This record gives sequence, structure tokens and C-alpha cells, in this order.
Amino acid sequence: MKKLSVAILGATGSVGQKFVELLSDHPWFELTELCASERSVGKKYKEATKWVMPSSLKTEIGNKEVLPCEPNLKSKLVFSALDSSVAGEIETEFANNGYFIISNSKNHRFDSDVPLLIPEVNHEHLELIKNKSGAIVTNPNCSTIGLALAIKPLYDAFGIESINVVTMQAISGGGYPGVPSMDILDNVVPYISGEEEKMKTEPLKILGKFSNNSIENAKIKISAQCNRVSVIDGHLENVQIKFKNKPSKEDIIKVWTEFISVPQTLGLPSAPKKPIYYFEEDHLPQPRLNRNLENGMAVSIGRLRDCEIFDYKFVVLSHNTVRGAAGGTLLAAELMKAQGYLNGIIDE
Amino acid sequence: MKKLSVAILGATGSVGQKFVELLSDHPWFELTELCASERSVGKKYKEATKWVMPSSLKTEIGNKEVLPCEPNLKSKLVFSALDSSVAGEIETEFANNGYFIISNSKNHRFDSDVPLLIPEVNHEHLELIKNKSGAIVTNPNCSTIGLALAIKPLYDAFGIESINVVTMQAISGGGYPGVPSMDILDNVVPYISGEEEKMKTEPLKILGKFSNNSIENAKIKISAQCNRVSVIDGHLENVQIKFKNKPSKEDIIKVWTEFISVPQTLGLPSAPKKPIYYFEEDHLPQPRLNRNLENGMAVSIGRLRDCEIFDYKFVVLSHNTVRGAAGGTLLAAELMKAQGYLNGIIDE
Amino acid sequence: MKKLSVAILGATGSVGQKFVELLSDHPWFELTELCASERSVGKKYKEATKWVMPSSLKTEIGNKEVLPCEPNLKSKLVFSALDSSVAGEIETEFANNGYFIISNSKNHRFDSDVPLLIPEVNHEHLELIKNKSGAIVTNPNCSTIGLALAIKPLYDAFGIESINVVTMQAISGGGYPGVPSMDILDNVVPYISGEEEKMKTEPLKILGKFSNNSIENAKIKISAQCNRVSVIDGHLENVQIKFKNKPSKEDIIKVWTEFISVPQTLGLPSAPKKPIYYFEEDHLPQPRLNRNLENGMAVSIGRLRDCEIFDYKFVVLSHNTVRGAAGGTLLAAELMKAQGYLNGIIDE
Amino acid sequence: MKKLSVAILGATGSVGQKFVELLSDHPWFELTELCASERSVGKKYKEATKWVMPSSLKTEIGNKEVLPCEPNLKSKLVFSALDSSVAGEIETEFANNGYFIISNSKNHRFDSDVPLLIPEVNHEHLELIKNKSGAIVTNPNCSTIGLALAIKPLYDAFGIESINVVTMQAISGGGYPGVPSMDILDNVVPYISGEEEKMKTEPLKILGKFSNNSIENAKIKISAQCNRVSVIDGHLENVQIKFKNKPSKEDIIKVWTEFISVPQTLGLPSAPKKPIYYFEEDHLPQPRLNRNLENGMAVSIGRLRDCEIFDYKFVVLSHNTVRGAAGGTLLAAELMKAQGYLNGIIDE
Repeated sequence: MKKLSVAILGATGSVGQKFVELLSDHPWFELTELCASERSVGKKYKEATKWVMPSSLKTEIGNKEVLPCEPNLKSKLVFSALDSSVAGEIETEFANNGYFIISNSKNHRFDSDVPLLIPEVNHEHLELIKNKSGAIVTNPNCSTIGLALAIKPLYDAFGIESINVVTMQAISGGGYPGVPSMDILDNVVPYISGEEEKMKTEPLKILGKFSNNSIENAKIKISAQCNRVSVIDGHLENVQIKFKNKPSKEDIIKVWTEFISVPQTLGLPSAPKKPIYYFEEDHLPQPRLNRNLENGMAVSIGRLRDCEIFDYKFVVLSHNTVRGAAGGTLLAAELMKAQGYLNGIIDE
Repeated sequence: MKKLSVAILGATGSVGQKFVELLSDHPWFELTELCASERSVGKKYKEATKWVMPSSLKTEIGNKEVLPCEPNLKSKLVFSALDSSVAGEIETEFANNGYFIISNSKNHRFDSDVPLLIPEVNHEHLELIKNKSGAIVTNPNCSTIGLALAIKPLYDAFGIESINVVTMQAISGGGYPGVPSMDILDNVVPYISGEEEKMKTEPLKILGKFSNNSIENAKIKISAQCNRVSVIDGHLENVQIKFKNKPSKEDIIKVWTEFISVPQTLGLPSAPKKPIYYFEEDHLPQPRLNRNLENGMAVSIGRLRDCEIFDYKFVVLSHNTVRGAAGGTLLAAELMKAQGYLNGIIDE
Repeated sequence: MKKLSVAILGATGSVGQKFVELLSDHPWFELTELCASERSVGKKYKEATKWVMPSSLKTEIGNKEVLPCEPNLKSKLVFSALDSSVAGEIETEFANNGYFIISNSKNHRFDSDVPLLIPEVNHEHLELIKNKSGAIVTNPNCSTIGLALAIKPLYDAFGIESINVVTMQAISGGGYPGVPSMDILDNVVPYISGEEEKMKTEPLKILGKFSNNSIENAKIKISAQCNRVSVIDGHLENVQIKFKNKPSKEDIIKVWTEFISVPQTLGLPSAPKKPIYYFEEDHLPQPRLNRNLENGMAVSIGRLRDCEIFDYKFVVLSHNTVRGAAGGTLLAAELMKAQGYLNGIIDE
Repeated sequence: MKKLSVAILGATGSVGQKFVELLSDHPWFELTELCASERSVGKKYKEATKWVMPSSLKTEIGNKEVLPCEPNLKSKLVFSALDSSVAGEIETEFANNGYFIISNSKNHRFDSDVPLLIPEVNHEHLELIKNKSGAIVTNPNCSTIGLALAIKPLYDAFGIESINVVTMQAISGGGYPGVPSMDILDNVVPYISGEEEKMKTEPLKILGKFSNNSIENAKIKISAQCNRVSVIDGHLENVQIKFKNKPSKEDIIKVWTEFISVPQTLGLPSAPKKPIYYFEEDHLPQPRLNRNLENGMAVSIGRLRDCEIFDYKFVVLSHNTVRGAAGGTLLAAELMKAQGYLNGIIDE
């Protein structure tokens, strides 16, 4: 199979670097073009970026020349790691010019014709772009993704009335340079701009029902409180749920551990074998111990117990820059390719 | 005024050291005796302990000989920083032998004749030991204290139906050596043994009504989720409240910022001028920036905002080893002395 | 005594904030004017700065209007916390217009008529500005100061041929926002731009001999290796020395612990009672335990032992933002005032 | 090829766990027996240990019963992660009973008939155990290994007179629970018991010449200063060298980057393709970015520059629990097998 040529917009930032890392040896995609802001254009990638990934930058990629973020690329499949201050217009321009763009930015997440996609959760929302010759698909916020994966099988099985979530989020979620060390060493910051709003709105679209070519939002009361903690990677969340039909603990764990979805059935290259793991040990999951489960693509859950106010409470962990950003976006691209949404650009 | 001689049980541990630090220059109390387990008895204090406080150990205290934890001390006022594995019996023995013992240990907190005391919150509970010639008074758990101070004025003014709290607790709460660095660097541990149980039961006694020489517990639904984070000192809590009579935000902030209680009226040496401070800035309070407010004796609150599920949510911070342990216990002793509870031992 | 009016240039940065903190209750100086870059001019100080000091910002200072860094201030004594990209010209302009400016910036440190001052080490260098009606005095680099204080008494007593130093420096040395958390959490960065060069040159001027109104540099071979570590405050240094006349360990410790200088004799308000403390314990000094000794103005030394290559090796700790920046600068101002260098501006 | 059965002594500690992790899928060795102290004997491994590795414990290994550390094992090749308080006698007993034991403990490192082995550096020292039917082979201290690998090719090419090294060592070097978090968060500890002594003596044996069935120590002056820093994995070292024949920088980098040795030639499964990597970037190597190079088995070097006192200075990084402990020991076992030293036990 000939690999499909892909490009990255915003390739020099930390999410951009994670894309480079994950695409450096991908079975379906060939990383061909690296685009960034004017400041970097014309430089070699290795000189335009301060590489901070734990793996080494491949020589052939480091030597590529950085291109401007303009829709004259050879690659018609484009991953966007652009900052939200510029992503909105650029992404629209690419879509209007026949590109399929999968974005980590918040700008188009609530556009009515744009899927807010987690491949295991709402693959059917891709129908919003059916037969389009160019489109935007968005990846939810990193703290939403772990939560949405944890609640999807429960929502389907038992119905959910309300969700209360408190996050303890990793610094990598703030990008690079991002969170100043003076702010977070020996500290917690109980505020992340815009984050609580995203967490209470995005799950409603993600869990929404697709019909008549539009999405009807789910009806769940959600309250989110978001904190930044001194952790490199891995968002940990304390979650409480009130169900429509209260299940037993055993029911819940069974639903979680048996959950598989389309990406697993299709055997997509980046799909975890199982999207959800439940840990019986009291002290798990923990960011440093569990974030890399299934190459960072699985969600770890633990401590399911009765709640004095809601029905149950539990702890969810997911890798914010893999499952919550670059890895999730890559899985979306794989799903789109496997389901034929990219057929129009494959022969070009 | 002649200073009252005091002793510390469990003087070599980290809470013991904090007592030594706070008592090293106290206007009312003279630190006379340092007691610890058999392993330390007979050694000079400075050799029996590995001093980890940020201030220097005073030479005269460092040279004191460590005594056994037996009720033959000169000091009749005794601070206990004993481990709960031994505190129960030893404290009872001291109380039965005419000592007033103020303890940080959990063992006697729910004894019906033992006050679970936060001086600003339930000073009237001290009447449980009125006219006694020896007694135990206990200090609540470090994570309970910040919460109880924050909710006391709200409880009195508006009534409370339910409280939902998620904590992010400092490592000093685990003592020394306590939390292994391998467990907490680049990590969060979403579990602290016994902590959630304490947080949902202790506030009910603390906010209970004293009448007929006993305490009638408050009736509030409380759910607590406790996490350990990579912070030296300062427990941060995300709190949500459903009131009996829902006040406005302005009402709540007014009640908090105007709150003073008996320790303030009496001008006790360790009392903060104000027990509660409210911060308007979105990003406050933070452990490293606010924990030392009023020498660590004040509680910092911020981010009061509407909640989608409860009435309001906000953030509380308190210093766990000062307000939450040694400092709070010292304030209890000052209150007891100022109100005459120690008169029986003052002439001795 | 009427307090002398003082101003701060670069008041909104982290060193500027430390100046504000230290000057908020000074017996000799009255903080009158706060100056910063154009972006902040005209705003209230509390709105122009993101206050990150552990103490609260005083209301009356927070409400002051930020002024431009121009030499039309009422205060003739000015503390400069300007960034080196702009400090050079601005400081010269102030000096030329009759101001006494004490600077933390590197720009003028090697000007032949500018003292590079550590009050306990080279107070006599102030004669460079004798009878001047405006002048620049500079504070050395934060990592140099601890080293220079530790070696000054040894240099005077025994002569020094060579010094080998490896630093482990706190993140606060990088200012705010400064070091990104992604760079330093679970990490060490073995490089600080320009730092090694400063450490090998500055001590030579500081230890230089003043004669004929100029300074003759000391002749010592110095090698420095500088690392950034995950510490908030406090630079730790591993030092090795080859002496001209090798003393015994006892000689060295005696010279250190007996060392006092002019600031101590004059009883300057910010002077530590003793500039140097020696710790016998193997595991000391440590940043978190010892950096605040004497309000951060004393240097802590420990682990003096034989060296297989040099004569001796030992460990030095000093507080980089207090002794190494704002506190040291303030002490310099106190020395200048006590010795009459500021007489020309006191009556104004 | 039938896999060779192996056992681990001290399997429940942190080095023991790292052995379990590395052996869980080894092409030559089959992890058959897990041994530990009396407290663990008889329990399932997963219940006897608190697993803290970032990968999951394999079910079949977790279910193995822990055996006592007694020489009645089926496996004749044994990895020892025993604490030095007990390792001495137990290891001798095993060797005397026909076992080949490869140890991380310090006890036998300087026995005249025991190789202190780094496979790339002194493979010829294995001849000390030639024709033996049971023997001890030891792995050097974790901080020695990175240094020895970095200097071996320089020593051979140019001769070395003296080495000055300052280490910044990761907390995992202290085992589990090991370093208390209260000691290392926001801190550096400038002392590690016994470490400096090991670093100045072990390289002399490692670089020693094998002849007449004994090892003649190298003659190099070494001074070591050891610090513990807030890093999970990866020892960083600031190294200075005075050569016998001073090479150019280019010579040094060429010698490093071209260095390969017997493990590379033999293609041992755990051998890195290249043992040494040189980084040109000023800010590298860093523990978090480079420690996992070649699965943690390669050494990263950077910042080679002229020294004012020695000839050159540079920075070395190596992974302390992989290359410096379990991984290095495993490589030693592979070398022994490939060179026939284990032939006597292979048919059993």
C-alpha cells in the first residue's frame, strides 16, 4: 500500500512535535510537509524548533524546510496543531481548498458541520462530512477526552443525569514554554483559562445523537473544576456520576472492561487493543505509572466506590498529549481513511 | 506572667518538630520536656531527631534529654504528636493522671467526652471538659480543618445541605519520611488511607450543637475525594455546596471576610487577625503563594462561582502542618488557658 | 530620622517584586516610586504586575501608579532590576543626571569606575564613587555572590591559586516567567547562558585590590560549570580550592565562622549577624532547609573535606533572590548611606 | 534455541522490579524463579511487591510464588538485587554451590577474583572466572558506569591523569521507598552515603589491566562530589579531565562517536547499537530528554569545552536503573553466555 502524504500545521510547537514523533514511522501516512509561522518558514525544521520530545528527532525530518501554512501543499490530509489565535481562519481556508484537516484547536469544535470526534465514542458523527471534498474534523480538549471515553459505555448502558468532575492536569497541556516553573513547582494552580467551560460543553456534543445530518446534544448536567499540577504528562480526574438507571459496581466494571468500538474492530494502527482498563488497587491509576498504557492510547480507571451525594465516584487517567491530542487526532485520520472518507484525495 | 511549662509527646517526628518550632519563643508557654519512643529516650534531642524544619533548632532545646512518654512529667499541659498506633492508650493514661493533653492523633476524636476542637469554630465544645482535672482535647484531621473553617460562617448564616470536596494534599501531611519521592515526583496519588472517611465524619461533630453536656452532630451530606500532590505544605480543596437557603455570592463573601471568633476577640497569641481571606484573582489561592498568610493560621479562599449541580463552588487553601496540626493545637491550648480551663494546673 | 525616598526601575519583574517586598517596611528607605516599561506605565502597580511573592502586596504600594524609567524622579536613590537588554543606557542616563543607581544587571559590572560590590567583601571599592554626585554601583551575579562570600576570608588568610565550582541553581534565578516547567520538572539543565563566564570573571574584580582609584584584579584560576535544577530558591555550589598556603580544616572553619565585616560592625538593617555559617552535619546545607538563614542574607557552608586533586572541597548555599539579588543590593544601599556616599542627596 | 532459566534474588525491591521488567520478554533468558526475604516468601509475587514500574506486571509472573534466597534453585544463572546488608554472604553461598551470580550489590566488587564488569569497557576481566563452575560477577555503582563508559575510549586513546566529577543523581538510585519526598522536593541533597568513595575507587579497577589472572588497577587521580536531585531517572555528571596526551576537541568527539566494543560486535540483545552519543546542542544532554536513548543503554555526552584548570570539561548522562543497574547486569549475563562462560550450566 502506498502511504498517504500528510502535513502538519504548527509543527514547531509541542503538539506539533508530538505529531512528528507519532508520524515518524507510521504504516499508512508519510510525513511530507511541516508548516509553521513566518518566523520559522525557510529554516530547517531542526533549527526552527526546540525539540523537547523524549525520543530523538529523525535526521531526514529535521532537515526538511519549514513551509508556510498556506493551502498549496502536496498533502491533502493535514494535521493542525495551530494556536487558537490563528487556527480559525487558516483551517477554514484549507477546508475550502479541498483539504481534509484534523485539528486540535478549539475554534471549529462547535461548528454545526464539524465532527467533534473521539473515534471510539462517536465515529458516526463523521457522516457530517460525507461526500465532502474538503472538511474540518476536530479533536476535543485533552481533559474532555479521558472523561468522554470513561462515560460513553456507561451513558449507553445506563443513562446519565449528571457528572461532577475535578481535574488535576499535567503541564504539557499548556504547551511549550507554557506553564512557568515558578508557577507550578511546589504548587497547584486551581485555574486553567477556558478549561471548565470546554469540559461542560464538549461532552454534550460528543455524546450527541446524529440524525438528519446534524447532531442533537446530549442532556447531562456537568460541573467541572480544573487544576494544574506538577506532572509532566497525564490528566487525572475525580469523577462522580448520577445515573438514570443506577447500575451495580459490577455492572459498571463489566461495561468498562468489555468496551470496544470501531477502531478496535477495524484494527486501526493507533487504536489501543482495549480503550479502557480498570485497576482494582486502591492507589491506582497514577499519571506516572499508567499514562503510557497501550502507548498512551488507553484510559485507566480505578477506585470505583459509592458516593454519598451522587451514585458513584471514581478516578480516570488519560495521556493528554497522546490520547488527548496528537494520538487521538492520528486515530481519527486512520478511521477516516479506513471508512473511505479520504478516498477523494487518495489517488491524487 | 510566669510561663506555663509544657511538654511534647512524639517530639522527634515531623509534627513534633513543628511543635518545637512554634513553641521555641512562645509568650505563654515554656517548652520544658520532650518525650519520644524508647529508641530516642536518653539521647539529646538534636541527636534523636533529624531536624527538617526550615528554621534552625535552638541550641538549648537541641541539648535537652529526650524523656519517655510516661505520666511523670513536670508539665501538666502536654501536646501529643504521637502516631495513632500508640497514641490511644498513652493519651488516656495521661488524662487519667491529671494531665491536659491536646492531641493531633485520630484515636480519641470521636470519644463522647472529648472535644474535636477548632478554636474559631466550636470553642463551646470545650465545656465537655469543664471542671475536669485532666482531659483530652483533639485537633481534627489536617484536611478537615481548612474545610470546617470555610464552611462554619456559611453554615451558621445560611444552613448547608450537602458538601462535595476534592482535596489536593501536600506531602508534609504524610509525616517524615512519609511519602516516598518515587511516588510523588511527576505524579499524583489519588488515594490517602482513611482520609476520605475522616473528612466526611469529622465536620459533623465539629459543627455539632453542644447541649446537655454532649454534642449533637450536624446533619450534612458530605462526599470527599482525597489526592496527594507534589506540594510541600498546603492542602488545596475544590469545594461545592448546596445550601438550605441559597445566598448571593456577595452574601457569602461578606460572611467570610467579616468572620471573626473568640480567638480573635481574646487576642490569643497564635490567632490570625482574620481567620478567612477571600481573593478576587482567578488564579488564587495557591499553596506556594498563600499558605503562609498570617503565619500559616489563616485560610485562603477564592474562585467562588455558580455551580451547575450544587449552588456554588470555590477553592480553599490552608497550611496543613500549621493551621492543620501544630499551630491549630497551640491555639487550642491558648484558648483553654484564656478561658480558665487550665486554672487547676497553673499553680502547680 | 526621616526616611530616604527610593525608586525601583523594572518594578514589575520578579527581582523588582522582591525589592518591593524587602522595601515595604524598611527603617531607612521609603519606597516612593515604581517604574517599568511602557506597557505598564500609567497602570496601578497591582494591575501591571502578576504578584508572585509569598507575602501579600501592601495595598498602598499596589495602588501606586507605575512611572516610566526616566530620570525625572523625586527619589535620587534608585534600585535597578531592569533587564540587561535595556539596563545599560537607562542606568547611564540616571547616573549622568545625579542619581545613585544600584543595579542587578550585568551591563556596567566591568566599567572601570563602577564598583562590583558585595558589602562584606569589598566595601572599599565604593571609593570609586567618592565625591560623585551621581553614580552606578552594581551587584554581582547571583551565583557569584555565595561563592565570593565563602572564599573572601580564605583568600585573605591563606591565598588562593585556583577555584573549581559546579553550581546547581534555582529556577527563580531565571526570573518570571523564566524557566518553562517542561524544561525542569523531573530534569536538570546543564547549561545557563552566560553564567559560567560571569562566575569566572566577576570574583577577580570583587577580590581585586583598590589603589590609585582603580581596581587591580585578583589572580585566581577559576573554572565554573553551571546547572539549573528543580529548586525554587537557593543556589547550591560544589567548590574545590587550591590554596597558596594550605591551611588545616580547623583553620578554615575558624576563619569562616569568625568572619564579620563592615556591615556587621555598622549594624546595617539588612546585614546578617554573621555572613557565614558552617554546618557539621553531612547532609547540610540544603536549599530548602537553609536558604532562609538570617532572612536569606547568610551563606551556609558544609562538608569541608580533603580533595584528591585540589586541597579541599566543600558545599556552599546562598539565597539567590535575597542575598544574590534584591537583599544584597539593599545592603549595598545601606552601606552607602551609612558611610556618607549618599550625603549629597539626603537633604534634597 | 532453548531459553536459559534465570532467577532474581531480591526480586521485590525497585532494582528487582526492573529486572523483572527487562526479563519479561528476553530472547535468551526465561525468568523462572523470584526470590526475596522471609517476609515475602510463600506469597504471590504480585502480592509481595508494590509494583512501581511504568509498564504493567505480566500476569504469569505476578502469580509466581516468591521463594527464599537459598541455593536450591533450578536456575543456575542468578541476578542479585539484594541489599548490601545481606548480599555478601548469600552471594558467596550461591557461588560456592555452583551458581553464576551477577550482582548489583557493592559487597564483592573488590574481591580479587570477582570481575567488576561493564561489558563494553572491560570484558576481558571475565577471564577471572574462566573455567569456574560457579562465580560472582559484579556490576559497578550506577554513578560509576556512565563515567567509566565516557572515559574508557579516552583513556585508551590519550591516557588520563586526573578526573574531577560532580554528580546530580536521580532519586531512583535510592531504591523504594528510598528518598523521602520531604527531602528532595524543591531541594538538592549534597550528600549520598558512600557514593563518593565508590566513584573514586571503582573506575580504577574497571580500567585496570588484566594479566596473570589478576587485575592491576589504573592510576588516575579521581575526585567525586555527589548530589541527589529531584529527577526520577538519569544521573547527570559534570566531568573534567586532565589527559596524559592532550587531544583536540575533534579527536575526543571522534573517539567517542566511533566507540564500539565486544557487545556491539557480538550483537548482544541488550547492547545499544552505539554505547556513546555526542550532542552538539548547548543545553543537552538532559535526564528527561535523553535518558531513554537506545532503551536506556546508551550514554549521552555534551558540552565538551576547554577548561581553565583541567584540559576539558563536559557533561555525561546515563540511565541509572537501566544502564546503571538491571540493564547493565543483563548485558553482562548476555556477554557471559555469548562467550561461553555459562556453558557449564547450559545443559543442566
